[in-house]
Amino acid sequence: MACFITLEGIDGAGKTSHLPAIAALLAEHGIDALLTREPGGTPLGERLRALLLDPATQATLDTETLLMFAARCEHVQTVIRPALASGRWVVSDRFTDATFAFQGGGRGVDSARIATLEDWVQQGLQPDLTLLFDAPTEVAHARMAGERQLDRFEQEAAAFHQRVRAAYLARAAADPTRIVLIRADQPLAQVRADALAAVAALLAAQGARA
Amino acid sequence: MACFITLEGIDGAGKTSHLPAIAALLAEHGIDALLTREPGGTPLGERLRALLLDPATQATLDTETLLMFAARCEHVQTVIRPALASGRWVVSDRFTDATFAFQGGGRGVDSARIATLEDWVQQGLQPDLTLLFDAPTEVAHARMAGERQLDRFEQEAAAFHQRVRAAYLARAAADPTRIVLIRADQPLAQVRADALAAVAALLAAQGARA
Repeated sequence: MACFITLEGIDGAGKTSHLPAIAALLAEHGIDALLTREPGGTPLGERLRALLLDPATQATLDTETLLMFAARCEHVQTVIRPALASGRWVVSDRFTDATFAFQGGGRGVDSARIATLEDWVQQGLQPDLTLLFDAPTEVAHARMAGERQLDRFEQEAAAFHQRVRAAYLARAAADPTRIVLIRADQPLAQVRADALAAVAALLAAQGARA
Repeated sequence: MACFITLEGIDGAGKTSHLPAIAALLAEHGIDALLTREPGGTPLGERLRALLLDPATQATLDTETLLMFAARCEHVQTVIRPALASGRWVVSDRFTDATFAFQGGGRGVDSARIATLEDWVQQGLQPDLTLLFDAPTEVAHARMAGERQLDRFEQEAAAFHQRVRAAYLARAAADPTRIVLIRADQPLAQVRADALAAVAALLAAQGARA
């Protein structure tokens, strides 16, 4: 059965850098996974992503949350579900846990209200495996500093990122079967090895060909 | 108490042309109403309106519905509620009945799913008066033909507009206290007189100064 894997974590935790290695491991097992990301993942989603990350955008928290789920809806209905239905694995750089973490934990949108939209859009779809790349926020921040222009979310204060991290950790604690915590403040090779081990465990559970 | 009035109807029913007369009647009663529209009504909403009306936009029905409610959320939270809270009347060219009519009746989105988003965004806010400008779809279509470029929604087949009209009429039948049916296939002066009479009735009920 095709599986749906998501990568999560605060900005600077390094999750995106591990996507190629995960894809390579899957390829070694004969799996040509679809690699995608949120917000974005579709032409409409990329337009909404640009809108959401634009520092000039004025949107209330609730509006921002609805736009996140609009982009997600297009992504789920036109990319993720069709791929899974055709037997193709999907790896997404962020998914709904990010909304609970950033809009929920970070900005204070009630998690029950987020869950209502999650049900509306996903109608039961959940990742089979979520890799949560976790690091202290000061480590993550130091990684990002100087590397590139910070976008609207990245400019938020340190306290915001601490709330986001706490919300991610709470979700991992509540759903340890799906969400595997990866300590991202280890040496890069170890982080990668831990991430690949989690994917390998899923492959083994699925009985994929070696 | 400040009231919230909405104008509804299929494309070509002429509702928008009556907005100035309604504003003038309110002004005669000392009411400087805020005139707005959906989709749109805010800078973000206007960007989403342009996206939604662009014939090149690819969006599933569910995504389109979420975008409509994202624009509406911004409109409700930054324009409509603040105006009403400050004592200012609001007149909106289209509101949520349009979503039930176009996305629901016209395109087949389940009305219970629309109602979930309505509750999420409006949290109880409803118009005090809705003027539903109704006309047979062939009358409305003849009005629009030749006048201007038809947008994405207007290009839809006649059967679509008939389903939209039927959904509007069903909503009026279910909520006759709020929704006043205006026969828009009458001479223009009579349509206007009927619309103004409905607003005058609301003014009388509110005890507004004459």
